[in-house]
Amino acid sequence: MVPVISFIGYHNSGKTTVATKVVKELKKRGYSVAALKSTKHRKLIEDTPGKDSYRYKKAGAGAVGIVSPDELVLFKEIDRDSLNLQLLSFLLFDDYDIVICEGFKRADVPKIEVARKELNQPLLLKQVNRVVAIVSDFPVDGVKNFSFDEVEKLTDFIEETFIKRREDQFPDEVELFVNGRRIHIKHYVKETLREILFGFVKPLKGIEYPIEKIDVRIVKGRGKSS
Amino acid sequence: MVPVISFIGYHNSGKTTVATKVVKELKKRGYSVAALKSTKHRKLIEDTPGKDSYRYKKAGAGAVGIVSPDELVLFKEIDRDSLNLQLLSFLLFDDYDIVICEGFKRADVPKIEVARKELNQPLLLKQVNRVVAIVSDFPVDGVKNFSFDEVEKLTDFIEETFIKRREDQFPDEVELFVNGRRIHIKHYVKETLREILFGFVKPLKGIEYPIEKIDVRIVKGRGKSS
Repeated sequence: MVPVISFIGYHNSGKTTVATKVVKELKKRGYSVAALKSTKHRKLIEDTPGKDSYRYKKAGAGAVGIVSPDELVLFKEIDRDSLNLQLLSFLLFDDYDIVICEGFKRADVPKIEVARKELNQPLLLKQVNRVVAIVSDFPVDGVKNFSFDEVEKLTDFIEETFIKRREDQFPDEVELFVNGRRIHIKHYVKETLREILFGFVKPLKGIEYPIEKIDVRIVKGRGKSS
Repeated sequence: MVPVISFIGYHNSGKTTVATKVVKELKKRGYSVAALKSTKHRKLIEDTPGKDSYRYKKAGAGAVGIVSPDELVLFKEIDRDSLNLQLLSFLLFDDYDIVICEGFKRADVPKIEVARKELNQPLLLKQVNRVVAIVSDFPVDGVKNFSFDEVEKLTDFIEETFIKRREDQFPDEVELFVNGRRIHIKHYVKETLREILFGFVKPLKGIEYPIEKIDVRIVKGRGKSS
């Protein structure tokens, strides 16, 4: 599963600046990065590129995608309150080395707080869970601490803690989501699930070898007769 | 699996108009619709809504998502030539009743051609596979034929052929992709796979009941040690 971390902080703390610097540094180190930002602004669709996407939206399409030769642009109705960053990353960003988010204080992912003394506000890490480090212009006790000019050191930390740990894990990745929630399973259970599915798939017709990736989805009672 | 169909036709044939009318009619009938359009224009990202997405893009993020309270806007680098509409729809649009596409002549999905006499061009259905109907201002033999003002009849056809057939299928949906390609499996095989996975998941910790949806992904040798 692609690792997901989020930069959080008050308005004007400089989280976008820190996060984009980290993206740049990760990119320089050869990693592929996806970014995901939370915003309060509604109706982004009005800024839609191209007129046709707007026509589909107006006709009532809940999602509109535009595929150009080298880019997909997608507008999709969601309910942020029920958004699951892990599921979203599993579906959209699993081909990247890491997902760098901004905002999403309440999401169940590791977070890095960005804080400035002059904003004179209480640290978020006291009210938010899973804050693993802080970037600040003042010292903070009891948590990994970086200054604003330590982007390389911060990137080292992210690389070691999240990207490399993924590579060191089980050689084959086995991910399980039930009802859209990620289920943590142990190595032995992963191995079993992998063997079951590889064994199941092998005798089927139309399989291309080598098998690099298997995706299975089961949805209960979508049809009429259940 | 969400049904995917595509409207194809020459420039100025009116495919966007027909397709958006169908979206509107489907919406009126209570269906949720996703739309996906193919375009030749590059660099859609320059029209990006909001400045921060552009900053992430410039920093080197291969994908940038912006989450507002009710919408996700995503910009993702892709290679259209290796784009798989079924996989894309499986990942992005499986919560919709149908995906209405425009363009994608070469995709392996059912297609509806839109043609006008005045364009004076050979029918695409002669060179493109899986054309199941044609919307035209002249009669065409050997294929289901609709006029431009028969949007309701056309929508009836789409509803019966694609949306209702999905509902009539197996009560539980079981989908299998291997190496990103959809594998067609028979009912008995689906039932088996469903039973195996439900049985596997049940004794695990942290499962919420009732189980409505199971997603499994296995990726070979993502880690170092393989």
